Amino acid sequence: MSGPIPYAMVGGGVGSFIGGVHRHAIDLDGRARLVAGAFSSTGERSVESGRALGVDPERAYGSYADLIAGESGRDDRPVFVVIVTPNDMHFPVARACLRGGLHVVCDKPFTITSAEARELEGLARERGLLCAVTYNYSGYPMVREARARVAGGEIGRVRKVYAEYHQGWLATDLESSGQKQASWRTDPDRAGVGGSLGDIGTHAEQLVRFVTGLEIGSVAADLSSFVGGRVLDDDASVLMRLSEGAKGTLTCSQVCVGEANGLSLRVYGESGGLSWRQERPEQLEMTRSDGSRTVLCRGGEGLSEYTAAATRLPGGHPEGFIEAFGNLYRGVCDVLSGDGDSLLARPLPCARDGEAGMRFVEACVESAKRDSEWTSV
Amino acid sequence: MSGPIPYAMVGGGVGSFIGGVHRHAIDLDGRARLVAGAFSSTGERSVESGRALGVDPERAYGSYADLIAGESGRDDRPVFVVIVTPNDMHFPVARACLRGGLHVVCDKPFTITSAEARELEGLARERGLLCAVTYNYSGYPMVREARARVAGGEIGRVRKVYAEYHQGWLATDLESSGQKQASWRTDPDRAGVGGSLGDIGTHAEQLVRFVTGLEIGSVAADLSSFVGGRVLDDDASVLMRLSEGAKGTLTCSQVCVGEANGLSLRVYGESGGLSWRQERPEQLEMTRSDGSRTVLCRGGEGLSEYTAAATRLPGGHPEGFIEAFGNLYRGVCDVLSGDGDSLLARPLPCARDGEAGMRFVEACVESAKRDSEWTSV
Amino acid sequence: MSGPIPYAMVGGGVGSFIGGVHRHAIDLDGRARLVAGAFSSTGERSVESGRALGVDPERAYGSYADLIAGESGRDDRPVFVVIVTPNDMHFPVARACLRGGLHVVCDKPFTITSAEARELEGLARERGLLCAVTYNYSGYPMVREARARVAGGEIGRVRKVYAEYHQGWLATDLESSGQKQASWRTDPDRAGVGGSLGDIGTHAEQLVRFVTGLEIGSVAADLSSFVGGRVLDDDASVLMRLSEGAKGTLTCSQVCVGEANGLSLRVYGESGGLSWRQERPEQLEMTRSDGSRTVLCRGGEGLSEYTAAATRLPGGHPEGFIEAFGNLYRGVCDVLSGDGDSLLARPLPCARDGEAGMRFVEACVESAKRDSEWTSV
Amino acid sequence: MSGPIPYAMVGGGVGSFIGGVHRHAIDLDGRARLVAGAFSSTGERSVESGRALGVDPERAYGSYADLIAGESGRDDRPVFVVIVTPNDMHFPVARACLRGGLHVVCDKPFTITSAEARELEGLARERGLLCAVTYNYSGYPMVREARARVAGGEIGRVRKVYAEYHQGWLATDLESSGQKQASWRTDPDRAGVGGSLGDIGTHAEQLVRFVTGLEIGSVAADLSSFVGGRVLDDDASVLMRLSEGAKGTLTCSQVCVGEANGLSLRVYGESGGLSWRQERPEQLEMTRSDGSRTVLCRGGEGLSEYTAAATRLPGGHPEGFIEAFGNLYRGVCDVLSGDGDSLLARPLPCARDGEAGMRFVEACVESAKRDSEWTSV
Repeated sequence: MSGPIPYAMVGGGVGSFIGGVHRHAIDLDGRARLVAGAFSSTGERSVESGRALGVDPERAYGSYADLIAGESGRDDRPVFVVIVTPNDMHFPVARACLRGGLHVVCDKPFTITSAEARELEGLARERGLLCAVTYNYSGYPMVREARARVAGGEIGRVRKVYAEYHQGWLATDLESSGQKQASWRTDPDRAGVGGSLGDIGTHAEQLVRFVTGLEIGSVAADLSSFVGGRVLDDDASVLMRLSEGAKGTLTCSQVCVGEANGLSLRVYGESGGLSWRQERPEQLEMTRSDGSRTVLCRGGEGLSEYTAAATRLPGGHPEGFIEAFGNLYRGVCDVLSGDGDSLLARPLPCARDGEAGMRFVEACVESAKRDSEWTSV
Repeated sequence: MSGPIPYAMVGGGVGSFIGGVHRHAIDLDGRARLVAGAFSSTGERSVESGRALGVDPERAYGSYADLIAGESGRDDRPVFVVIVTPNDMHFPVARACLRGGLHVVCDKPFTITSAEARELEGLARERGLLCAVTYNYSGYPMVREARARVAGGEIGRVRKVYAEYHQGWLATDLESSGQKQASWRTDPDRAGVGGSLGDIGTHAEQLVRFVTGLEIGSVAADLSSFVGGRVLDDDASVLMRLSEGAKGTLTCSQVCVGEANGLSLRVYGESGGLSWRQERPEQLEMTRSDGSRTVLCRGGEGLSEYTAAATRLPGGHPEGFIEAFGNLYRGVCDVLSGDGDSLLARPLPCARDGEAGMRFVEACVESAKRDSEWTSV
Repeated sequence: MSGPIPYAMVGGGVGSFIGGVHRHAIDLDGRARLVAGAFSSTGERSVESGRALGVDPERAYGSYADLIAGESGRDDRPVFVVIVTPNDMHFPVARACLRGGLHVVCDKPFTITSAEARELEGLARERGLLCAVTYNYSGYPMVREARARVAGGEIGRVRKVYAEYHQGWLATDLESSGQKQASWRTDPDRAGVGGSLGDIGTHAEQLVRFVTGLEIGSVAADLSSFVGGRVLDDDASVLMRLSEGAKGTLTCSQVCVGEANGLSLRVYGESGGLSWRQERPEQLEMTRSDGSRTVLCRGGEGLSEYTAAATRLPGGHPEGFIEAFGNLYRGVCDVLSGDGDSLLARPLPCARDGEAGMRFVEACVESAKRDSEWTSV
Repeated sequence: MSGPIPYAMVGGGVGSFIGGVHRHAIDLDGRARLVAGAFSSTGERSVESGRALGVDPERAYGSYADLIAGESGRDDRPVFVVIVTPNDMHFPVARACLRGGLHVVCDKPFTITSAEARELEGLARERGLLCAVTYNYSGYPMVREARARVAGGEIGRVRKVYAEYHQGWLATDLESSGQKQASWRTDPDRAGVGGSLGDIGTHAEQLVRFVTGLEIGSVAADLSSFVGGRVLDDDASVLMRLSEGAKGTLTCSQVCVGEANGLSLRVYGESGGLSWRQERPEQLEMTRSDGSRTVLCRGGEGLSEYTAAATRLPGGHPEGFIEAFGNLYRGVCDVLSGDGDSLLARPLPCARDGEAGMRFVEACVESAKRDSEWTSV
């Protein structure tokens, strides 16, 4: 490999939270370098952001269309584009990039509808381009360990899954106060048909599939909007039927007062169980039929090669959110460097996963409309 | 009060596990004294058990009918009868006792059907007798604290409840090995229509009502029998709609490998949350909107009078299962001593709760038959 | 065995806390029966207590001397005497009992001086009588598991021990308020030369020896009286040199605000470590060189026979302080029934341990006087 | 501010672990930019490393002397130098940099002797230069919260401190296998007089002073070398007497099998206690006299401004080791940008702290030689 892979960013100008997260995650490994961007919706502000980020002013554009057009002729054009716009723009930007021959890394939720997702998936496949979706929680080493252990048969055939994602920050009518994050997330036009489901439920859903390797066949969902005046769900309880006879529950909520970012997954198979919590990400608990609980720690011995590859610091030196996010980008860089079979690229959350997430949200919403009738995903 | 209250026991002969638990729980406070019993199904073995328990051989009977008949004329006859027979005998024994003018304390699950439970409830009310059901987990001090805090408005109006009761001991086909506990619990004739639902789900259900003060209006349930050949459920996932607009999930399972007795309850209201786990019963966690978690400990200051009354040892000297069980009996003794308004008697789990439990089980089974359709409890 | 073993109690009248703990602990198994006592310092009050406890008024005495004299001629005289008086009376009462041919179970701290302890030890040995000391924390099943694992070589040769006993209830000048527990514990005349050292440090010291099987050879101690006007230590930090080259620290404190009963022990050997905390007594954590932590749970499989023998309830049904206490009495009853080699009697904390405790306290106090010079225990 | 502050690095060539940590920590905020370095001991390899790091080959030197000489005349010369060489080189490099008018950020342990440390401290003061020492653990937000709470009087006057740093990786004779990290850390020539004391004990010692604001007046230490043939301590137990009448214990060990990086601090004052553990760095536990424990979480409300300033991600999105490290560099950049009174610069661990650490090590070693006699620090 000859130097870092050049990339561009759409969205994520100065002041954006998530743009910075993506850039820091990439910077952890220095394997890609920001060379261009449409950071904001005006050329002037985009240039300003670009300057702060060390991007040549000529390569800071006022729109994604200009970006694609402006960069297309250059020898040093970006290899991939990171999309960190509001959700409703993911689709048009990703489509334009893929059409322009650019690989894509898109923030989640992937699109507004599953049809859009399918279109992007098809487009990427057709053009032979990568279209990754940043389901960042699957980048945690101990999540990868869980996946490896399930795949290795250590807990036997999976029977029951409990997935949770509980937050409390929308327990009050925050959107009325004009808080930005709350406003768009509770607005169907910008967020899509799912509220908490789209925002955080999709993370839990992806973890279920990532760790168990199973598909979610159908759901029976009960959605709530506990805060008055809210149109989208701020709380969801979902029964799931998975492939191979497994079953599960998935609950997501943004009204669990006092919970910050309570994503967790428990999986029980015929001969053991696994439990992981995002807020204590360095540990994976394993239960066995003898009643003992073994706490596996990142950096310890005896962990899978997938886990080891996703690790930067020695055990006991806490890694966290940003390193997990960075692991996705390592996978992206592996793929784009021709090493699509690397430990970090197996598997990389892609359009297919984004599409599954949108189908999950749509099925839950549909089920809820039919008074929790079982609905195919 | 003039000495301990005399009581009799039906079932619970030497070798029985649960009989000993009840007796030890009662002995913790010495407020009742075992004077008679139909401990076994033959007079001879009953006498033998009675002797080991310090009961006059003349008062050890071969059947509950003999017990009631034999004791009825005595001045020193038992005031109440503890029923610790197999489940299918709860109803006939309790009915006979109540008809005979004896107060009843019955193990759970209360009966085989809700109709039976209603009959007992009516009978007890009519005769002015106590018919308590040993939902022992509501005897834990910190469960009582949770109830007091919800009632006192400390978490605001309740929105969401998560109740779990996860065990793993039936993850294999234990009943085929002839293991006694497994055999009757998986046998519809002796256990009723619910498997894990009746055995442990009812405990979780009672905790939900006990702590929140809400009723469970309807359920949508998905039941499973993961172990081949098993007729009754060994796993259940239940969506719940509670009174006052609250919602919840309840999962119970006996195939969660490695889990011993994982009963837990989390309740989130408009302004706070409460979390309790049976395996760490001395702590109650309280979450608040500022993101802090306060761990309240039994024996600490600032707890409710209900909690303090349910405490025997200073904080940090772990109390457990047996003390919680004993707290129910303290309430029973209070009521039977004319102090029905004591802190420990408010409330005492009674026939009404036993009946609610049976309705819950029946509604879940009904819902499951209709492919998880919402079903009134 | 023909029926429960008759025992008497000195101290522990109505209103006493610790007397009730001993009686409840004994009652858990029903293998001994209270038949006589010198519960209080006047005959009248002793009779009153005896009556409440079901003791024949004729066998409720006003002094231990009267008790021994009055019972000596009876066929049904007590086999052992439980001593739960204030500490300064332990020695004269135990001596009189042993001289009178009665087995003794004495609360801790055993005596006021190690010389007294040695006298009792010699007396008991000479007469062939049991003189047990209720170091109740070594009755916890998972403490016994720790001992069994160390003895079985599972962590290799022991290198380092960390013992702690941290409480906070004496963080203020409670004794000035007349609080009874605080008053005698801070009074050298009644408590001996050690404050926190005698009251709780001895428990930690016994656990160290019980679990590791090592002796404490010498100590270097720094004692403090953080609360103004207090004569005895309310906080102690002790360096220890143990037999076989092991080392350790022991800290005990009654001014650690907010700590209830924070007794814990961590032992590291050449190939593993063990960690136990009294406030979570059902778990024993084991560390290994691969960085994993295994949480062993009471009631689980694969535990030692010593642990299993000390267990009453299935795993996940929390046992606590009272059951651990009761395990000591099971050992006592085994010994007195001729089964001195039973699992619960191996080993039983005895006069020898009480004496070791007093030597430990004296050595720490001596070391502290010499500005923490290493002092032989 | 006009762009990132240019800095150079001595040591930390490709393949070095700690060099990467420093660079990533700096990169998190992008406020400084690597422009030059003496990354390795030969010019060729230094150039190679520099190239991989994006440093102009002309500015990659073969020695620190060349670096200082080569950069001194340039307009764009580095403002500060990061020193990440083996320990024995810290002193000569730092001295040369300070003499050359360059600010210094030095890895810890600061020097080999306290005399060297004092010389650097004096030199920095004299020249008006910054000489920071990367005691990175004090960069954790919740450590800063602990400090703020103690300073704010929330636990009252400090009485007792328990500091621990327990690792297990040197439980075997790793150095004989040629493992690099083990080799130099156990070699007195390269590591100085302290083994575990210097390597990790100094971190614990700095945390004690940072959080409590107290000085360590004297120590009584017992050092061990549990692994045969090891010259330096691999385990230390230290009694401490602090200013203002406080006391404490500090234990550090590298033979606690199974412990990864167990740094923890507990502080008890007259009215409360604080507890923090590096392996769960996002939480700070606070105990109060009412027996409750409050778990404060990073990102929650009600935390100090010092804590908020040290935070990057919302609560529940785990930050870890690298972010804490980065916080030190934010403070460095603040100071070098003229904002020496910023929240992150108050206080910044400096030569004075490095010197205190060396005095602590020397006093412990001296005390141990005198059989644990109290020794002034």
